[in-house]
Parts: sequence; structure tokens; C-alpha cells
Amino acid sequence: MQILQVEGSLTCTSRVEGMKHSVFRIVRDLSGKRQVATDPVGAEPGNWVFLASGSAARFAAGDFEILTDLTIAGIIDEWDPDEMTEAAS
Amino acid sequence: MQILQVEGSLTCTSRVEGMKHSVFRIVRDLSGKRQVATDPVGAEPGNWVFLASGSAARFAAGDFEILTDLTIAGIIDEWDPDEMTEAAS
Amino acid sequence: MQILQVEGSLTCTSRVEGMKHSVFRIVRDLSGKRQVATDPVGAEPGNWVFLASGSAARFAAGDFEILTDLTIAGIIDEWDPDEMTEAAS
Amino acid sequence: MQILQVEGSLTCTSRVEGMKHSVFRIVRDLSGKRQVATDPVGAEPGNWVFLASGSAARFAAGDFEILTDLTIAGIIDEWDPDEMTEAAS
Amino acid sequence: MQILQVEGSLTCTSRVEGMKHSVFRIVRDLSGKRQVATDPVGAEPGNWVFLASGSAARFAAGDFEILTDLTIAGIIDEWDPDEMTEAAS
Repeated sequence: MQILQVEGSLTCTSRVEGMKHSVFRIVRDLSGKRQVATDPVGAEPGNWVFLASGSAARFAAGDFEILTDLTIAGIIDEWDPDEMTEAAS
Repeated sequence: MQILQVEGSLTCTSRVEGMKHSVFRIVRDLSGKRQVATDPVGAEPGNWVFLASGSAARFAAGDFEILTDLTIAGIIDEWDPDEMTEAAS
Repeated sequence: MQILQVEGSLTCTSRVEGMKHSVFRIVRDLSGKRQVATDPVGAEPGNWVFLASGSAARFAAGDFEILTDLTIAGIIDEWDPDEMTEAAS
Repeated sequence: MQILQVEGSLTCTSRVEGMKHSVFRIVRDLSGKRQVATDPVGAEPGNWVFLASGSAARFAAGDFEILTDLTIAGIIDEWDPDEMTEAAS
Repeated sequence: MQILQVEGSLTCTSRVEGMKHSVFRIVRDLSGKRQVATDPVGAEPGNWVFLASGSAARFAAGDFEILTDLTIAGIIDEWDPDEMTEAAS
């Protein structure tokens, strides 16, 4: 599961029916690339989260009918992105 | 879900049955890489949209039988691609 | 859906049962990277095509039992890969 | 299936219901990029493992209801990442 | 479907139940990046093969219950990786 940072919310008036009343977040990786994810957890801007993709995203959204391919599955308690290149053991 | 910009429509006379009467759009990312997406929303060239991929794309197309792996799920109200590398909080 | 160019056919004597009598094509992207796709449409070398991936590829192959993850879904009538970096509207 | 190295465990107090009591590991590739995986095998930091992604990850987690897209499927007995660019036969 | 070269077999004593008695191969792309694939075909080191990914990999493994996301689907009769950048038609 990808590890991304929450940047903010998304305003989207025109969308397909299947999205229902989902909350959307803009999330991004270390390089700044942004994606849209559904958020059943209530993440805040700046939080580091891990996300379920593919068909798991629909289950994780709490309703298989929600049309998403990326859902925030959990907020990581502590995360230091600068440890990214540090060696294990 | 990916965030891409609509470039235009696609003309495709020879296609598999499963595509039915889907409307196709050419969409592209910031680097200019182009893909084809089905569009049940009615997006216009220049719009920034977010898209459901994988099996969610078939649900999002409004008919699970439509053979697509990428569907426009919503039009983003305001989007500034130049904010791409800006820091959160 | 990816946009790729057909390069030619593939000869493959030893394969799993689930492939049945599928026609395989070698397809490649602008960088020259090649993949194998099933072709229910009858594409010719040089054609630019768009392709369904994932579980949609099995539906697009005309038989869900065909074991593929990439199927040619349509031949694009006109395609100019050099427009790749041109700006929209 | 990807080959990654286990770095450590993940603490995540706030998460979706579907995660149940899964054990999470931080895993990373040779470039240092990190992801989160569920671990039904009991891998240790430093182990090289291979992982099932997509819908297979949910089966591999031992319970299809667990919401993950990446699961450790096995621990590789011996693995030398430095052989990475060596030629076969 | 990806085109990869078989490098050798994989020894893995500790693995999840769902793998059953699958034969695993190490496969790699032109850049040397390695992955693990199940092999129902009997490929040899040095063979160039094409592989089904995602849920198709489980079907291709000959048993949907086998937990894999990558399965060798066929051995390519002749393959010249040096043609990689040659132009079509």
C-alpha cells in the first residue's frame, strides 16, 4: 500500500452518481505528484497515510458501490520521510 | 485516482463490441503522456478531471459491461497544476 | 487505456491452456518498450490502438476465460504521436 | 510478484474497520521507496520477501475481507540483491 | 502482458498456505529488475516468456486459489531483445 501525505480536500461539483457523498482528499508522494483518494478515516492536511488501491479501495471506502480506486486505510502515527534512504538492520 | 487534463475526443471506427456507444476522451498528464478514457460526465477539452481505473472504471462508466480500464469520475472545479510542488501545511 | 502501436504477431508454441486460440500481437509504446496483447479486432502492423488492461482485458477478448491482462479494444482512425507534447486549448 | 526487504513494523492507531488485527510491515525496494504490506508469515526486519498485490493480496492475507493491496507471500531463503544486474545463463 | 526473461528458480521455505506446490521462477526485465512468477509451463533459464498479471495470473496458474499476481503464460519461440528500439513498418 502506498504511503502518501494529505494535502487538502477537493471540490468537485460535477461527478458520476457512484461517488455518492464520499469525502475526497488530494494526496501526494515525495516527488509532489498528486492523486485523489476517498477518505473514510478523517485525515487532516499534513497527515501521512497509507492507502488501499484497486478493488480493495472500494471495500475500504465502507461501501463496495463507491467508485474509487484509492482509499485512505489508516493514518500513520509517526512518519519521518527523511528516513527514506536509511539502511535496515 | 489519477488527475489528468482532457485534450479532446477520439475517433475509432473499428472497436470491440463491448465498448457500446461510449464516449471516449484523450486525456494526458503533466508530462504530455496520453491515454484514452470513457466519459460519462461530459468533460470539455482543457478540463482537469480525476479518473477511476481498474474494475472501478467499468462501474463508473455506468454499465459494468463497458470494456474500459479508465473512466472520468468527476470534473475538478478549480485546479492549478503549478501548485504541484508546493509544500503542505 | 494505453495507446500503443502494433509491431507484429507473436509465435508461441508452448503456452498455458487458458490462452485457447487467441491471436497475439506485439505492441509497443513511444519509447520502444514492448508488451504482448490479445487481438480480437484484427489490427495491422503500424496501427495505433488503445488497449483494455486488467480484468477488462478478459472481457474485451470476447471470452472471460481467455487468460490475458491486455487486449486491443479499438484501432484509432488517425493518430499523430508527434502531437504528444502539444498544449490543449 | 515484487521482491522487497522488510524494514520494520508500522504503528497506526486510526484505521478503517476492514483492517482488523492485521500485522503491518514497512517494506522497501532497492531505491529505498517504502510501502506498507500485511504480513501473515511473520517476517523479520532485513528479510527479503516476495509479495502478492491486487486482489491476490486479500486472499494471501488469509481472509478476503482484510483490506489490503499488498501482502507478504513468502520469505526468500537466500537473496543477494547485488546480483541484480548479472546476466542469466 | 509483460515480456521477461527467466533467470532461475526460487527457494522459499516459509510461505503462505495459498501458494500450494507452485513452482516459482525469478524473472527479470531488460534493466535487470527482478520479480517472482509462478510457472505452470516449465520455462528454462534464459527463456523469454510473456506473463499474465493481476487476477488473470491466478487463472493462468491453473488454479484460481493459487495466490500469485504474475504467472508465465507462454514461452516465446524466438525473441531478439536488441530489436527493442527498431521502427515498425
